[in-house]
Amino acid sequence: MFPQKMRRSFEPGYENWEPGTCLLIYTCTVNAEIVAVGSEMLTPFRQDTNSLFLTNQLNSLGVEVIAKTIVGDDRARLAEAARMALSRADIVIFSGGLGPTEDDLTREAVAEALGVELRRDPALITELYTRFASRRIKMPENNARQAELIEGAEALRNPNGTAPGQWIETLYNGAMRVIILLPGPPWELEPLFVEQCMPRLRSSVPETYIATAQLKLAMVPESLADQRAAVIYKQFPQVQTTILASAGEVQFHLRAQASTQEEAEYRVETLSGLLEEEFAKECFSTGDETLEQIVGYYLQMRNTTVSVAESCTGGLLAERLTRVSGSSRYFMGGVVVYSNEMKTLFCDVPPLMIGAHGAVSKEVAIALAEGIRGECRTTYGIGITGVAGPTGGTEEKPVGLVYIALADGGKPEVIERRFPGDRLRIRHFATQQALEMLRQKLV
Amino acid sequence: MFPQKMRRSFEPGYENWEPGTCLLIYTCTVNAEIVAVGSEMLTPFRQDTNSLFLTNQLNSLGVEVIAKTIVGDDRARLAEAARMALSRADIVIFSGGLGPTEDDLTREAVAEALGVELRRDPALITELYTRFASRRIKMPENNARQAELIEGAEALRNPNGTAPGQWIETLYNGAMRVIILLPGPPWELEPLFVEQCMPRLRSSVPETYIATAQLKLAMVPESLADQRAAVIYKQFPQVQTTILASAGEVQFHLRAQASTQEEAEYRVETLSGLLEEEFAKECFSTGDETLEQIVGYYLQMRNTTVSVAESCTGGLLAERLTRVSGSSRYFMGGVVVYSNEMKTLFCDVPPLMIGAHGAVSKEVAIALAEGIRGECRTTYGIGITGVAGPTGGTEEKPVGLVYIALADGGKPEVIERRFPGDRLRIRHFATQQALEMLRQKLV
Repeated sequence: MFPQKMRRSFEPGYENWEPGTCLLIYTCTVNAEIVAVGSEMLTPFRQDTNSLFLTNQLNSLGVEVIAKTIVGDDRARLAEAARMALSRADIVIFSGGLGPTEDDLTREAVAEALGVELRRDPALITELYTRFASRRIKMPENNARQAELIEGAEALRNPNGTAPGQWIETLYNGAMRVIILLPGPPWELEPLFVEQCMPRLRSSVPETYIATAQLKLAMVPESLADQRAAVIYKQFPQVQTTILASAGEVQFHLRAQASTQEEAEYRVETLSGLLEEEFAKECFSTGDETLEQIVGYYLQMRNTTVSVAESCTGGLLAERLTRVSGSSRYFMGGVVVYSNEMKTLFCDVPPLMIGAHGAVSKEVAIALAEGIRGECRTTYGIGITGVAGPTGGTEEKPVGLVYIALADGGKPEVIERRFPGDRLRIRHFATQQALEMLRQKLV
Repeated sequence: MFPQKMRRSFEPGYENWEPGTCLLIYTCTVNAEIVAVGSEMLTPFRQDTNSLFLTNQLNSLGVEVIAKTIVGDDRARLAEAARMALSRADIVIFSGGLGPTEDDLTREAVAEALGVELRRDPALITELYTRFASRRIKMPENNARQAELIEGAEALRNPNGTAPGQWIETLYNGAMRVIILLPGPPWELEPLFVEQCMPRLRSSVPETYIATAQLKLAMVPESLADQRAAVIYKQFPQVQTTILASAGEVQFHLRAQASTQEEAEYRVETLSGLLEEEFAKECFSTGDETLEQIVGYYLQMRNTTVSVAESCTGGLLAERLTRVSGSSRYFMGGVVVYSNEMKTLFCDVPPLMIGAHGAVSKEVAIALAEGIRGECRTTYGIGITGVAGPTGGTEEKPVGLVYIALADGGKPEVIERRFPGDRLRIRHFATQQALEMLRQKLV
């Protein structure tokens, strides 16, 4: 369960490698376009998310996505989008528009773009009838449309729905194309793609090898992280580096492609090793773990427990800690002490202290941490108090001011921070800082 | 502060209206395409989200979005996407690719598609120099690229960044086109679009009137909500109805377009009135409020307070209640009692009761609700206990089983539910059910 890569030392050979000199820059030979079909994705409410999944899968084969198009349920526009995609991409994937209703026009539009006909497949018709019969429902006549295959297409069975996918290999204006039609719902599309399309694609695209790596940092501002990292990753143009940032977290995603797996891995690991060295203090994971998971691993590993007393974060810290399955082994309990009375009731914060320093103060943060630690008899206690806003700020104690304290029976630690952003962002920052403080204590 | 529309009765004239017969179906005359530019949006990690904002704005003018395209930082593909969009849409909006680096190619590509030149604008150059000088930074030579205007374009000032937008009205293959170039970061794009593009667009598109309405329902399964609603909304083809669903919440978004504001409003309000009647019990808002906000309104209105004791939801209920600014007026405190000892310590749950019925039981849920209510001396107390999974389930007490109790000093209410989905979904469902239980008590 403990992430194996977390304590990975540098790979053999790393020391002798000179950055930026000896590696070939790969050229990508196969590319893809994703066309998402459905008028609901042209409203302000819904977005195509299948393309993120599909991109990840395609990238793992060394296939790059060069464009994404989102069109409504309109046959002419859909056919036009199909022609456009077929003119520029080797692999064209359509998601959605395979249902039984008149709005479902992907089959017709792709056939039109290819200049071929649809034909009703007897085996698919039989399957549909059987499916409905087994549920003792008469099949609506409309559903027969789902048995229509584009000339030259192979049906892709869909165990999770009535709309089968379609796979077509064809020439389009003299160029070889793979065309894939997939149902729209993710729980149908994903298994169908992984089980039936990926093996076919793997054998159709030139063999290439991909390696990926990631690093997650806590509480480093994005601009600073990028500044420190750029010096390093700019020396590795053959590794694609993507930086993602959210409140209190920066992620580096690395990806390299090569003609052998060893070489691809060597490339990303060389860069990730250097980045890990640069961010040795701030890097909490080189895997998929969240900060709360990592903190959980350490708490368990050290046989320790934690309890929390939250004011401005209103339960978010407890919620994050308990998002992790199995957290009951190290998370004992928490209190959300919004009012001064509750701070006294649950954590024995002296009313006089609140009177003298205010509820948002170093002193109260420490008293909360020590109070909850004593109540719950845990190894560590965390106390958070601050002004999450948008109201309640003063000149002396402005919105964004947060005190976070960590008690362990010895001298308590306390941090003062001014977080930017709105109420939810400030709350998230505060919990991220609290988790990072605990992680630093545990490593 | 209390949502005005929440208690709206039916509009005058509603009773005499016969559905599906007397209203014209509108035809939309102006349409738009959105082109998002940036290679990062072709990775598995990032998505274009500006288009949701832009679609909402455009729809409010009666402009429909007919397609969205996402392309990388590649001049040829970008120019091709521009030509495609210009061939089919009246308004073409580009977001991103206006920065100072060589990867920022939107200006060049759009100029190429239009067959015109870029020219460096002296006023913009001066402005850029001034901007940098005021921060005592020498302007990098690259930044001068941001002063390049497409021939015939008007600059759109960007108070939040260095890249100005551009506005072009031109003929393209004989058709009138409005072309807008916007910076990619949302905090630059959004104010720029609202302040400078919306007034221009409003005067360029034919006057039309849009009315929208929404209804939010708690704890109705999506399929059931759709089944009950479809009977009604299918009689209103002139109102566009979109249904969104998440764990324990269904939203209906209605939208109608007409030649007068009154008529547009009449259309959506007739339908929303009928839907409100159908879902009188489950509809918690006809505005933008979240369920926790609505519960907060009611608690304040009734001069009441609440406290919570959570086991399997781990603080999520307290977190949701305190997401609302001003919640300290009615939310007194909460405890997260993961272990049995904490249940006893903070809520006086008798250890014998836990021994007899188990921690996940009706009895313990009630004891938690009554215990926390007594401790915090609030009007209401809520107790939640259950199995969020993925481990810890048994045949008798499977994953997803949750008990939610509400105490108010009289006979406590308790609900037993089996929620579907993973750990996070079960936790969300449980808090949604708890909030809805409290709302039902308060209405």
